[in-house]
Amino acid sequence: MSSDKPVIILVDPQMGENIGAAARAMLNMGLDELRLVNPRDGWPNETAITMDAGALEIMPPVQVFPTLAAAVADLHFVVATTARPRDMVKPVFTPRAAAAEINARANNDQKTGIVFGAERMGLINDDITLCHAIAIIPSNPAFSSFNLAQAVLLMAYEWLVEQDSAHGRISGTDENFPATQDKCEEFLSRLESELEKRGFFRTEEIRPTMKRNIRNIFIRACITDQEIKTLHGIISSLIGK
Amino acid sequence: MSSDKPVIILVDPQMGENIGAAARAMLNMGLDELRLVNPRDGWPNETAITMDAGALEIMPPVQVFPTLAAAVADLHFVVATTARPRDMVKPVFTPRAAAAEINARANNDQKTGIVFGAERMGLINDDITLCHAIAIIPSNPAFSSFNLAQAVLLMAYEWLVEQDSAHGRISGTDENFPATQDKCEEFLSRLESELEKRGFFRTEEIRPTMKRNIRNIFIRACITDQEIKTLHGIISSLIGK
Repeated sequence: MSSDKPVIILVDPQMGENIGAAARAMLNMGLDELRLVNPRDGWPNETAITMDAGALEIMPPVQVFPTLAAAVADLHFVVATTARPRDMVKPVFTPRAAAAEINARANNDQKTGIVFGAERMGLINDDITLCHAIAIIPSNPAFSSFNLAQAVLLMAYEWLVEQDSAHGRISGTDENFPATQDKCEEFLSRLESELEKRGFFRTEEIRPTMKRNIRNIFIRACITDQEIKTLHGIISSLIGK
Repeated sequence: MSSDKPVIILVDPQMGENIGAAARAMLNMGLDELRLVNPRDGWPNETAITMDAGALEIMPPVQVFPTLAAAVADLHFVVATTARPRDMVKPVFTPRAAAAEINARANNDQKTGIVFGAERMGLINDDITLCHAIAIIPSNPAFSSFNLAQAVLLMAYEWLVEQDSAHGRISGTDENFPATQDKCEEFLSRLESELEKRGFFRTEEIRPTMKRNIRNIFIRACITDQEIKTLHGIISSLIGK
């Protein structure tokens, strides 16, 4: 499995046909690592084969995860594909700019991923919070609902085109390497639990939004392992340990 | 019908589903003039509607022609989409370059079209002879056979992107507006002073580096006013105020 190519992650995919068509689209563009989060009809799914044009047989086995957090745990940089901007503070890219960013990070040995939501609903905000940036596919505002495999194709296409163009971005140093998502999660869980103990989240209603906003600050910054250690130290210091 | 947009022409299309999916892909990208040459199952075709997500109802009526020559008769500039180069002297474009060419000609009041071959065979050389240029969609050489609607989507996508002068990063909303540096400074000073009180910075030597590293996490994230309030709340909560 090539760590220099983005992983494609489908969250709650419903139709097997769409998973198959997405696999075909990925492989058309040279991507071959597909992960599924909670596929409605389970996996493997025979109907996927009707639309994959043989892609699933050629690709490494599809991996299945119960949650998006688990599916992105080993990744350093994750882009969420959405049809519309969200009320969340994150870099928003075109597919082209997202491909450039992914490529620059891959050149720096970061493992990257691109996340797609379910056919009808797209991604929920809690999923997007786990991602470092958003990519919005340009479309006709009067008719902007994409077929899932079509969205996958466009992102994969821009990735392939990006491989061919020479861009000037200098890859970062080792110190810039973001922590994997599971390390971030460990820190964020601790922070939340310390805040819970102290009654920080005053009401049930605001708790989810508050948590999302707090997570977003740190995920967006692509914090490093060293920074996570520092942040753990800060919490310990502030709570008097 | 807008003469400034390229017409999409499908030659000998076989599956109604693919025609429907192609219509959806076109309209997703703002194209709405679809022409069919000799569709295998005639037209209209009920199976098209299963995959069009309502696009065919919104678009002007699909026109049907017996030959490609008839379908391109009123066009000034026609691009043939193929998977591989042909032994024919013609300009060969990437989808991106083809979109730029189409746009330039449309700005010069030329009526343009993009031609796609049948699912299995692609375009025959006689069809390509009727076209002014060839566009080749980049792909994985080991797995380069595209679904018809996917090919239509990519060409239409490049056309739409070409319309847009904004190629890069989409500017954020008001909510994404970073706080001014003095607000950040106020928060960072408070954090540092609370950490000082608790002996977080163990030695004089590491203090400047530690401070710089901590600052860097938050500055890099371009935190907003709202997020600064949240972070102040977190400090207060952790120190037990």
